[in-house]
Amino acid sequence: MRAIDVIRKKRDGGELSPEEIDFFIRSYTAGDIPDYQASAWLMTVLLRGMTSAEIAALTQSMLHSGSVLDLSDLPGRKVGKHSTGGVGDKTSLVIAPLVAAAGVPVPMISGRGLGHSGGTLDKLESIPGFHVNLSLAESRRVLATCGCALIGQTAEIAPADKKLYALRDVTATVESPPLICSSIMSKKLAEGIDALVLDVKTGSGAFMKTADAATALAELMVETGVRMGKKVVALITDMDQPLGNKVGNALEVEECIEVMRGGGPADLRELCLELAAWMLFLAGRVTRLDEGTRLAAELIASGAALERFREIITLQGGDARVIDDTSHLPQAQNRLPILSGSNGFVVSMQCEQVGVASLVLGGGREKKDDTIDPAVGIVVHKKAGDGVHAGEPLATLHYNSEARLNEARRMLEESYAIAPQPPVSRRPLIHRIIQGTRHVGAGK
Amino acid sequence: MRAIDVIRKKRDGGELSPEEIDFFIRSYTAGDIPDYQASAWLMTVLLRGMTSAEIAALTQSMLHSGSVLDLSDLPGRKVGKHSTGGVGDKTSLVIAPLVAAAGVPVPMISGRGLGHSGGTLDKLESIPGFHVNLSLAESRRVLATCGCALIGQTAEIAPADKKLYALRDVTATVESPPLICSSIMSKKLAEGIDALVLDVKTGSGAFMKTADAATALAELMVETGVRMGKKVVALITDMDQPLGNKVGNALEVEECIEVMRGGGPADLRELCLELAAWMLFLAGRVTRLDEGTRLAAELIASGAALERFREIITLQGGDARVIDDTSHLPQAQNRLPILSGSNGFVVSMQCEQVGVASLVLGGGREKKDDTIDPAVGIVVHKKAGDGVHAGEPLATLHYNSEARLNEARRMLEESYAIAPQPPVSRRPLIHRIIQGTRHVGAGK
Repeated sequence: MRAIDVIRKKRDGGELSPEEIDFFIRSYTAGDIPDYQASAWLMTVLLRGMTSAEIAALTQSMLHSGSVLDLSDLPGRKVGKHSTGGVGDKTSLVIAPLVAAAGVPVPMISGRGLGHSGGTLDKLESIPGFHVNLSLAESRRVLATCGCALIGQTAEIAPADKKLYALRDVTATVESPPLICSSIMSKKLAEGIDALVLDVKTGSGAFMKTADAATALAELMVETGVRMGKKVVALITDMDQPLGNKVGNALEVEECIEVMRGGGPADLRELCLELAAWMLFLAGRVTRLDEGTRLAAELIASGAALERFREIITLQGGDARVIDDTSHLPQAQNRLPILSGSNGFVVSMQCEQVGVASLVLGGGREKKDDTIDPAVGIVVHKKAGDGVHAGEPLATLHYNSEARLNEARRMLEESYAIAPQPPVSRRPLIHRIIQGTRHVGAGK
Repeated sequence: MRAIDVIRKKRDGGELSPEEIDFFIRSYTAGDIPDYQASAWLMTVLLRGMTSAEIAALTQSMLHSGSVLDLSDLPGRKVGKHSTGGVGDKTSLVIAPLVAAAGVPVPMISGRGLGHSGGTLDKLESIPGFHVNLSLAESRRVLATCGCALIGQTAEIAPADKKLYALRDVTATVESPPLICSSIMSKKLAEGIDALVLDVKTGSGAFMKTADAATALAELMVETGVRMGKKVVALITDMDQPLGNKVGNALEVEECIEVMRGGGPADLRELCLELAAWMLFLAGRVTRLDEGTRLAAELIASGAALERFREIITLQGGDARVIDDTSHLPQAQNRLPILSGSNGFVVSMQCEQVGVASLVLGGGREKKDDTIDPAVGIVVHKKAGDGVHAGEPLATLHYNSEARLNEARRMLEESYAIAPQPPVSRRPLIHRIIQGTRHVGAGK
């Protein structure tokens, strides 16, 4: 088999066999196919697309390019959760301990923030001492002890994806649903899970700007998971404005602790309960979804979720005092309120701009090797539908350096659209639910 | 400007500006854009296509990536000729001295054979001592002395094309009309020519199997040349069977000398006269095409073309005795006739197979660095339309090694289709003529 023939076949619109895909991925990972052939192939995939059989084969090959956690000796179905990312999207930090507290093991491999989008690992690392770079063996021990491990992608996991992703990033081949799908699914399935809940974001702060694009990607991922023998559900959820009120690493940890204490913003709490309910349902811990929502709410009310989070922090080397006193989290030295220039209503937010404003303050990365400031970020006071008076704060910047403060301020100001009348309709928090290959729910 | 943005723009179907194309080609040639970005871009060009403005800009950038012969001090319009290649396609060896003998300078940069297709440089090198690797300065001197130079692509000429072509070869991005067009045209225009005659082959021995595909490529090349201020004509000519009767390097030189002596096969002679006539016409040496044909025939009859070829051989270090005695060309030690198995008529030939049979005997290259045997090849006795008796020779293999003799023999046998009735129609030698952007002639 020759790389050029595989490229040519896909170039001419053919369907690649699992053997051809596996040959290509194995040889590329081993360094036997050079980058310049891989990038040509990636471009054919982007422009020609892939069938669901091809995507499943690609996912399978990338998955088996590295280690897969074997959790078969842990009792019960293991459940994963993945979000396509957004601004203030922090549900993992609440859900993972919550679902673990219900007795369902949650092995969770997360990523870092890039561009306007935050990353779970960066948020966790804002907890002093918290260590995300566990080996698979260490993760296994943490997981066996407390039912949950929150770790980063190690070199052992899907090395093919790591290598391909770096190449896609510099060859304009990121924006391909089959490549996005196989990249996500190969990493998630390496967690050794039996079931997976996908949170696919849509709106101005999401990678998929429209619900249709998000749905198409969700369907690919659900079908791929099902083909690989997993129970999978995807929730298409709103990312047209930040989720919750806080954006920035330590700020988001703080807000998650608020939710686990029984408070926090309504949208964030609702989405956490909904995602957790689906995880409990797919794990067989509950037999009906509403039972899952109720159980999740109870685990928050009883403090069980928060206690489990304390345990995880301790096991992963973090300072668990943050649970009782969030002032142990890094704090920015300065605050700058962004004031409304007029009376009226917030009709919409440019959500991506809010994420970029946080990045500009130092809370995110423009390039992969940028360092971030865990303390900085944005607290949002007004969101779509809220009334506002001239001079009232819309949001507050938390910052340490004045270097790009004006840029962040301008971005945040421009992200708000304020009108004399309230918006005619509100976007739903959950747009659609896709299970198996059928839609089982719609906007609620 | 960033490479990834140029890739993305073409990927999404946009039209690249001359500045974007020039940035990409310059940076790639300088090594500032890596192969993996260039191959992704090449694949977008292959799959998305290019407008004629983009092709002209690409040609311009590749042309100016290296040296361009400045022949402005030589009197008269300089005319080039290019063929897309085929089997027994040897017209350059006749035409170049012929047109030069008419007082029109012909700077000719040619290529080597690859696969089933022969190359002018290999044919010339079968003349003992003939030296094709002249520098541009040396070529200039030869050209000034005898009106013609027959040379290879030096490192000075279109280095961008050289680098891109090597990459296309291994990334399944060869078969793109815009890339083929700009590759050919950038090299031809580096000859410092004012006008260009293109011989675009079609049929079973050509890269463009159908007349439509050949016409589409020809139109791109003509339009590109016209946009760059050149007079250009393209003849779509037949390559459904070998041109002339001899295939193989020294054998083809021998056949060209036959033509220049006033003999040789009718199809080869006719095509040489026709192409030469167009060159004389575009150079302004004659004012009507039929005048060009007549002048070309006279230059053969008078021996002027042959004498000019003798002069070129001498100037480029070759043994000019071959002009009077072709036994000074390398001769294969053995002959093997291929006999017809039945009575009937040759209805068609698999022309590419004939070229591959010659390659298998050692007369061509499978890979770029294969060495070739100049003496071996095939002499064709029967072509489409010819009657044949069982046991009568169809062709004769000229060989030195028995290593792959049976393979070549079988290929040649299988390349002949013989039927009881003669073929209903004959393919024309010249299918179509494309000048400027108009078709000015059709099948003759």
